[in-house]
Amino acid sequence: MLKVAILGGSGYTGSELLRLLQRHPQVNVTAATSERFSGSLISDQFLNLRDTNLRFEALRLKSLAKKAELFFLCLPHKTSQEVVAFLNKAGKKIIDLSADYRLKNARVYTKWYNTPHMYPTLLKKAVYGFPEIYRDKIRQATIVANPGCYPTSAILGLAPIMGKGFINVDSIIIDSKSGVSGAGRNPAQPFMFSEVNESVKAYAVTTHRHKPEIEQEISFLSKKKTKIIFTPHLIPMDRGILSTIYVRLSASGGKEKINLSYVQKIYHDFYAKEPFVRVLKNGAYPTTKAVKGSNFCDLSVFLDKHNNMEQALIIVSAIDNLIKGASGQAVQNMNIMCGFDETAGLMNLPPCP
Amino acid sequence: MLKVAILGGSGYTGSELLRLLQRHPQVNVTAATSERFSGSLISDQFLNLRDTNLRFEALRLKSLAKKAELFFLCLPHKTSQEVVAFLNKAGKKIIDLSADYRLKNARVYTKWYNTPHMYPTLLKKAVYGFPEIYRDKIRQATIVANPGCYPTSAILGLAPIMGKGFINVDSIIIDSKSGVSGAGRNPAQPFMFSEVNESVKAYAVTTHRHKPEIEQEISFLSKKKTKIIFTPHLIPMDRGILSTIYVRLSASGGKEKINLSYVQKIYHDFYAKEPFVRVLKNGAYPTTKAVKGSNFCDLSVFLDKHNNMEQALIIVSAIDNLIKGASGQAVQNMNIMCGFDETAGLMNLPPCP
Amino acid sequence: MLKVAILGGSGYTGSELLRLLQRHPQVNVTAATSERFSGSLISDQFLNLRDTNLRFEALRLKSLAKKAELFFLCLPHKTSQEVVAFLNKAGKKIIDLSADYRLKNARVYTKWYNTPHMYPTLLKKAVYGFPEIYRDKIRQATIVANPGCYPTSAILGLAPIMGKGFINVDSIIIDSKSGVSGAGRNPAQPFMFSEVNESVKAYAVTTHRHKPEIEQEISFLSKKKTKIIFTPHLIPMDRGILSTIYVRLSASGGKEKINLSYVQKIYHDFYAKEPFVRVLKNGAYPTTKAVKGSNFCDLSVFLDKHNNMEQALIIVSAIDNLIKGASGQAVQNMNIMCGFDETAGLMNLPPCP
Amino acid sequence: MLKVAILGGSGYTGSELLRLLQRHPQVNVTAATSERFSGSLISDQFLNLRDTNLRFEALRLKSLAKKAELFFLCLPHKTSQEVVAFLNKAGKKIIDLSADYRLKNARVYTKWYNTPHMYPTLLKKAVYGFPEIYRDKIRQATIVANPGCYPTSAILGLAPIMGKGFINVDSIIIDSKSGVSGAGRNPAQPFMFSEVNESVKAYAVTTHRHKPEIEQEISFLSKKKTKIIFTPHLIPMDRGILSTIYVRLSASGGKEKINLSYVQKIYHDFYAKEPFVRVLKNGAYPTTKAVKGSNFCDLSVFLDKHNNMEQALIIVSAIDNLIKGASGQAVQNMNIMCGFDETAGLMNLPPCP
Repeated sequence: MLKVAILGGSGYTGSELLRLLQRHPQVNVTAATSERFSGSLISDQFLNLRDTNLRFEALRLKSLAKKAELFFLCLPHKTSQEVVAFLNKAGKKIIDLSADYRLKNARVYTKWYNTPHMYPTLLKKAVYGFPEIYRDKIRQATIVANPGCYPTSAILGLAPIMGKGFINVDSIIIDSKSGVSGAGRNPAQPFMFSEVNESVKAYAVTTHRHKPEIEQEISFLSKKKTKIIFTPHLIPMDRGILSTIYVRLSASGGKEKINLSYVQKIYHDFYAKEPFVRVLKNGAYPTTKAVKGSNFCDLSVFLDKHNNMEQALIIVSAIDNLIKGASGQAVQNMNIMCGFDETAGLMNLPPCP
Repeated sequence: MLKVAILGGSGYTGSELLRLLQRHPQVNVTAATSERFSGSLISDQFLNLRDTNLRFEALRLKSLAKKAELFFLCLPHKTSQEVVAFLNKAGKKIIDLSADYRLKNARVYTKWYNTPHMYPTLLKKAVYGFPEIYRDKIRQATIVANPGCYPTSAILGLAPIMGKGFINVDSIIIDSKSGVSGAGRNPAQPFMFSEVNESVKAYAVTTHRHKPEIEQEISFLSKKKTKIIFTPHLIPMDRGILSTIYVRLSASGGKEKINLSYVQKIYHDFYAKEPFVRVLKNGAYPTTKAVKGSNFCDLSVFLDKHNNMEQALIIVSAIDNLIKGASGQAVQNMNIMCGFDETAGLMNLPPCP
Repeated sequence: MLKVAILGGSGYTGSELLRLLQRHPQVNVTAATSERFSGSLISDQFLNLRDTNLRFEALRLKSLAKKAELFFLCLPHKTSQEVVAFLNKAGKKIIDLSADYRLKNARVYTKWYNTPHMYPTLLKKAVYGFPEIYRDKIRQATIVANPGCYPTSAILGLAPIMGKGFINVDSIIIDSKSGVSGAGRNPAQPFMFSEVNESVKAYAVTTHRHKPEIEQEISFLSKKKTKIIFTPHLIPMDRGILSTIYVRLSASGGKEKINLSYVQKIYHDFYAKEPFVRVLKNGAYPTTKAVKGSNFCDLSVFLDKHNNMEQALIIVSAIDNLIKGASGQAVQNMNIMCGFDETAGLMNLPPCP
Repeated sequence: MLKVAILGGSGYTGSELLRLLQRHPQVNVTAATSERFSGSLISDQFLNLRDTNLRFEALRLKSLAKKAELFFLCLPHKTSQEVVAFLNKAGKKIIDLSADYRLKNARVYTKWYNTPHMYPTLLKKAVYGFPEIYRDKIRQATIVANPGCYPTSAILGLAPIMGKGFINVDSIIIDSKSGVSGAGRNPAQPFMFSEVNESVKAYAVTTHRHKPEIEQEISFLSKKKTKIIFTPHLIPMDRGILSTIYVRLSASGGKEKINLSYVQKIYHDFYAKEPFVRVLKNGAYPTTKAVKGSNFCDLSVFLDKHNNMEQALIIVSAIDNLIKGASGQAVQNMNIMCGFDETAGLMNLPPCP
């Protein structure tokens, strides 16, 4: 049994890790930290967790380092930078759910997170934990930067066609709709029930921190520095992200008479062997409900003929923001890093309704 | 007191009309029809309605024609065609909430609604009931085609900049999120609570019937035949439509160095005297909650600098789909047609939360 | 126009007062206080409010006293005690939405609110603002203690049969279900969307502060010191309280063969002239949705034959907790105190759905 | 691997069985029937189900009998009567999720379900599938009548104290709050999203069919024919039942000075070895959210001192209506009947939020 610890365990990504790992066949959670709840039973703080006598403890790295071989970090960005450095030095495997090691370019990180990056060498060493793209690198990695929820949803929708000549990479618009758990567990007025229920709003228009993360990966995949338009929205539901992605076909694409079934085949082929990504039949619509509570992603592709000169693809992707968008993907990364079956502990089907 | 009748009063647009008109200072509802509930008190079918002894009756046009001077039609499309013709012949004022008289081009109507239009002369006579654009024509009209909910939301967001040289009208993408009441009151499995709650989905991608309606009005306003991309989504809430609208600036626009405050001023000026449309301060986000239960529309405009060559406007609009998107706008049209104060019966502030 | 001020205007009861009073035909809101938002436009803090240039100001009693004739107090309990005393001395009319002047027995107040009552004379002077019971006293009152939301819901359900010989007053159980807005607007983890959505829970079992308030009024009405069992529940919706009330018939009642229609007639008679309370037809069920956004209350009465020896009444009442349960009732009290039409500004029908 | 079939698989209890059994380590689902969806892939009808090529088939008993050893019946009551008879004759194990074999007294069945019971011998043979009470009988059973959702919630709350001298069994009141999935998957206007969202209502007051089922089991446990008051409510959430149960202490109980910790100990002892029932610490409140998506039940016990003469227990229980209240309990019964580990396939922790 692999000994693992969760640093910053009192938020939603922490509690989801505790939930998933408690039922994982090859893992033993030996420590979970929380400054706020230090000393109390995790099952008293999270009534959904049971069958465990684990207590939250304070974040003391030296003693913690002795307790586990692999560490999940659910700490605030900036804090994570140093903790990763410490644990890396101690020879531990690390899966960092913060944003600290996601952006490869330290200047981009500094611009969007308002803080310098102190560990450029580790930044280079860290692997972006996107199994469908970097599975081989993750296998060798000791530091994995676990992707953001919106980027997971967007990149899964775009990956199959990046680098294809028939799309206009400068035209990408990602309109995402997220459940409220994405805002975290700390009390804040904008996320009070009576504020967000029965309402929908856009937020952080043009300024959301997941934008450079998506752009980085889209640029890698298309081998061209690419800017996107990204608009997140808050939806009155607990979990789920639905991204509606608009990509115009390139002029040359138009000439080649790209048709829908051709593009759909590209998606089916790209994800044919992926255990967690399903491309739906032509005309079927992904819903966040059908993936809620699971590590699965559903995708559909549509073609808008728009007008005679120009066409556009509309890609819709659905994930659970706390699982495939955070803690489930972290477990998937652990499975890959540790040579476990990649799906271990992650194959629960979504309860529906 | 103006005598008005509501034909097809047992759906949500009908019950909202009943609710609004019952408190209207210059109107008396003398009849409401429903085949299904004929004979029963409207306050027994709609527990929220009270202080009325009105009963639903069957749709018998001859006797109904004697009961009122103005008719609201909440009938299915195709049925509405003929009822409009009958009432027009009888010299009545008509506000048709169906789609039958919205599309000016009968061939477009036939293509999208799978049925011929039998009254091309009346189609020409009917005025599209969008007060912010056609107020003067509505004043003279006897047949008003009340706009669809999505078109209201989209056109309010786009009207101020249509025809401006700095936008690329071929680039318009409208991503709309609607509450479930837009699907109507008839039982259908996809709109059962347990199916749509805690979920979001896109639907009718590229094929929604409100697309040609939006294109018609955008084309009129921009004086150029225009195609749009329109994607509606279903959101787990009762009421409200939020539309996020993406418009690229034209190449020349880029050269002219369009800035955000310039565009925002265009919006503020355009709606300066409109009683129901508010352009929010820079950086503020419309929410459907802040307009729910009212005839108001909130708008915000953002500028995405995207990259050096191209920029895009992101416009967000919020309305209540059953009020400004249907019954409230119908009452507003009635007020204009009848020379009442345009805001009569419509100035309730949204209850919030 | 009566000049009124709202002290403590930045919570939900404050914003509802602002909303209702802004459309009241005989009232002018001249001041609203908020320490937190002092200086800012109320329409910037509450996007649903518009058509006003009023700004929040700090609570400075001396200057405020000059600005209005009637004051609504939405202040925390204990604070309210003194403010009432100051304004009373200044000869103002006061409607206190806190609990400070509701409990007539200062010792009971001290026991449940952990603070002494410093103004026993004013406590005696204050009238419990329950129009359906104390209308005549309210007309003469200068200090009105506006009832709590749960007590309003419970007392409306029980008033018609209190003092009747056929019920066992010691058997009363009130099981109430409330929307989340009842918890107020301040950020707190238990009322975050992701905590309360898709969940129901009981809370404050046997210990809720509204219990002695209900007991006081039930005891007055039945002329017997009465204890109740009261269990509040939190329901995932914005507004509304549904109370399900269980009352066993007395042994003598059983002998008299009380039947349902007899009891229903008592309810119909009791509320026959009340503008805001409706007793539904036999077998119809109140829903909070049918009263949401309004000052109305719906009631139904059922009889459980249980077994041969004992029978029980089951009474169900539905109100909007922020309107009839708080701000609407406060406006109703103001109307009575000031000689306005009791329904002025309060007759909006509930938007539904 | 045990071969099992699901008859009536297209509702929510059927799809939950399919979901749970697909991941069960000792079971193979070989058939699932649906008249409506016969021939189509179950994963096309239920997007949350995947990794299966099973298709729905029509209900042809002869051929189905060859396909499986154990049958889950999710058929309408009355239909189930005969299907049980047929499968029993064929020597199959049966778990019937309908109400047909729950009520031991055929006359009571006929009165509440308006249809005679044609198989009194089988009725006697059938075991009420409540593991916490009838585990030993279930082990031997070939026909198990799976309990209703409300009865599961109520009986788990009451079982530990039935038969204790200190309670008044004639005083039991059960006030239950259920999510909407309990109403099933068939389209019906009262369960449309826009009708039930943002609302709570009582329904079937005094007349719900689960009342005699609860009374039967309470009477067995207390060895006294007992009548209850039972009021179900509809809550705007997908899943979950919270029951708030009121039980007065008997006069003798009062004399014995029953205290809360004494009663709580009875509960803790009663459920000490039960894998799915947890009695919470003193003062903690069950929420349906903390058991949603799982087979768990959370319980709390409170004491209301009420007045000097009489006291009452308030017991709160929370379950997932589709799992512990239906399909999960059915799998638990199968595990017991077949000698599997009772918790096999049922230990998933509830995703939260």
